[in-house]
Amino acid sequence: MIATKASRVVQAAGGSDVVDFGLRRAQGPDGALSASKAAYVGGCVATSNVLAGKAFNIPVRGTHAHSYIMSYKTELEAFRAYANSFPDSSVLLVDTYDTVQGIKNAIIVGKELETFGRKLVGIRLDSGDLSALSKIGRALMDDAGLDYVKIVASNDLNEHKITALNALGACIDSYGVGTELVTAKPIAAISGVYKLVHDKNGGRMKFASGKKSYPGIKNVLRKIQTNGRYANDVICLEDELDQTLECGLLTRQVLRGQRKFHRRSMKSTRSHSLECVSRLPISAKRLKEPREFGVSISTGVEKMIEDIKGGLNHG
Amino acid sequence: MIATKASRVVQAAGGSDVVDFGLRRAQGPDGALSASKAAYVGGCVATSNVLAGKAFNIPVRGTHAHSYIMSYKTELEAFRAYANSFPDSSVLLVDTYDTVQGIKNAIIVGKELETFGRKLVGIRLDSGDLSALSKIGRALMDDAGLDYVKIVASNDLNEHKITALNALGACIDSYGVGTELVTAKPIAAISGVYKLVHDKNGGRMKFASGKKSYPGIKNVLRKIQTNGRYANDVICLEDELDQTLECGLLTRQVLRGQRKFHRRSMKSTRSHSLECVSRLPISAKRLKEPREFGVSISTGVEKMIEDIKGGLNHG
Repeated sequence: MIATKASRVVQAAGGSDVVDFGLRRAQGPDGALSASKAAYVGGCVATSNVLAGKAFNIPVRGTHAHSYIMSYKTELEAFRAYANSFPDSSVLLVDTYDTVQGIKNAIIVGKELETFGRKLVGIRLDSGDLSALSKIGRALMDDAGLDYVKIVASNDLNEHKITALNALGACIDSYGVGTELVTAKPIAAISGVYKLVHDKNGGRMKFASGKKSYPGIKNVLRKIQTNGRYANDVICLEDELDQTLECGLLTRQVLRGQRKFHRRSMKSTRSHSLECVSRLPISAKRLKEPREFGVSISTGVEKMIEDIKGGLNHG
Repeated sequence: MIATKASRVVQAAGGSDVVDFGLRRAQGPDGALSASKAAYVGGCVATSNVLAGKAFNIPVRGTHAHSYIMSYKTELEAFRAYANSFPDSSVLLVDTYDTVQGIKNAIIVGKELETFGRKLVGIRLDSGDLSALSKIGRALMDDAGLDYVKIVASNDLNEHKITALNALGACIDSYGVGTELVTAKPIAAISGVYKLVHDKNGGRMKFASGKKSYPGIKNVLRKIQTNGRYANDVICLEDELDQTLECGLLTRQVLRGQRKFHRRSMKSTRSHSLECVSRLPISAKRLKEPREFGVSISTGVEKMIEDIKGGLNHG
C-alpha cells in the first residue's frame, strides 16, 4: 500500500528524487520502520528515518527543523552553525521567517563554504508558493554561482501536487514526502484478508453476500506482451500451471522450515520492484482515469466453484 | 485521533456497544496497541486485541473467523464445536454461506446450550443488508425463546453507516468496528507538530507562510457555562492564569524526574474522557455540519507576537 503510494509519487516526480519524510506520521516505531522499507521499495531514493537506514541499509537524507533556526538569535547565525557541523551535507531550511531573505542567507553561507573548499548541498522550501519560490531561489543561486546547489521541497506533498508543480515548471530537484506517503492517503487500509481456501477435503469457499472468496491452492500467471510489457493476470489453480513452461508470480520461499533462496537486499528488492512497475501498461499507471489492469479467473477455479456449489446443494 | 473517531462512532451507536475490531488494520503491533488504548478511552467497551486487553486491562470481546466455520464439514458442526469450547461466551458468525440458514443453525445450537443450562451470547452479521438481516434474526430468535441472545454487526462500519442503521430501526446490540476506527478515516494523520516557542531569550515564533506558530509557554483556559457545559477555550500564556482561581487544561505531571500523581487506570481515563465529551456543546458534536468549538488567543499571546515582530523589524 505504501510502496504503491511511493511508486505513484515517484512517477509524478519524473526525474526528481523523492525522499521518505514520514516517520512522525506513522503509527508507532515499528509502523514507521515498515513504512520506510515500503517507501524505498516503491522508489524513494532515501529516508529521513535514521533507524530504518541503519536496520535495512537504506540511504538516509534529511534536513534540520525550524526549531534549529529558532534556537539561534538570527537565521544567518543558525545556518553558519549548521554548515559548520555538516560542511559536506547541509540542506538549509529557508522559510522560518521570510523565504526570499532565507535564500539570500543560504547563499551567503554557500559562498562562505566555498572559501573552505566545501559545497552547500541544498536549500529546502517548506511553505508558500513552492513553484514561484523555487524559481526565485534557482535564479538567485545561479546568479551567485551556486548552480550546483539543489532545491528540496516539502509541505504535505502528494502525487497530484507534485504533478502540478512540474506542470508549472518548478525548479525542484528533490521532494520530501511524509504524511501522505506513510498514511497511503486516501487509502489508509487495503481490504485484503486471509481466507481458508483449501483443507484436507479440498477447496473451501465463503458465500457471504458481496464477500465471496475463491477456493483452491492458487497461483497467478502473468501474461506478457511481445514488447515485454505485462498484458494481464490470470488467477489459476496451482496444478493448472505447466511447470516446464510457465512460472507463477507466487514462488515457494520456505520448504520444510528452510529458506530456499538467499534473502534479497533492500536495494535488489527495490530494483526488482522498479523493473516490474516499468513493465506495467502506461494506461494502468496514469494518475487520471487509469485503466484497470486485467485480472481474470481461470476455468479451473471456475469449475471448482461450481463443484463446491453443487456439493452444497446436495449436502 | 483514534479516540476522537471512537467517540464519534460510540455517539452514533447510541445505546449499543462498540467493540474495537481494528488489530489487523493497524500499522504493526505497537500501532495496534496504541490504537486499542485510544479506542477504549474514546468510548469503546472492549477490544478484540487480546494483548491490549492483557497489557492495559481493557475488556476483551470477539468472535471466531469465517475460516473456523469453513474448516468443518458443515456450519452446524462448526457452531457446535465452538459452543462446546466456549459454552458461556459464544458469539456465532452466521454469514459464511447463507445468513438466514446460519441464524437457524445458531438457534439450534442456542437451544442445545439451554439443555445444558448454558446460554448463547450472540450471533454476528458481517455482510449483506445488516438492518434487514438483524430484524429477521431478532424475530427468529425471539420466536425460539432466545430473546436474550444479542446481535453483533460488523463490515467496514463507521459513524455514518451506524447512524443510518439506527435510523432504519436495525436490531443491533453491539457494533464491531475495525478498519475505519484504527485508520481514523478520513483523517489518517493530525497535522500537529512540536515547535520551539520559548528559549532563554523568551518567546520564539515561526513566520512561514500559512504556518505561523504562537510563541510563549502557554496553557489553555476552558470557560464553563453556568449549566456546566464547556463554552470555549482561550490559549493564554501560563503567567496570565490566576493560579488561585483558575486551572489550565495542561497540568504538570512530572517534576524533577518524578511523577507528581498516581498513574490513572485505563478505566478511569476512559470515564474522564466520556465525562469531558458529555460536557461539550451538542452543536460541536453532531456529525452533520457541526459548529466549531470556539478557541481564541489571549491578549498576552497577541502582545508577545507584536513584540517579537517589532524586535525583528529593528534587529
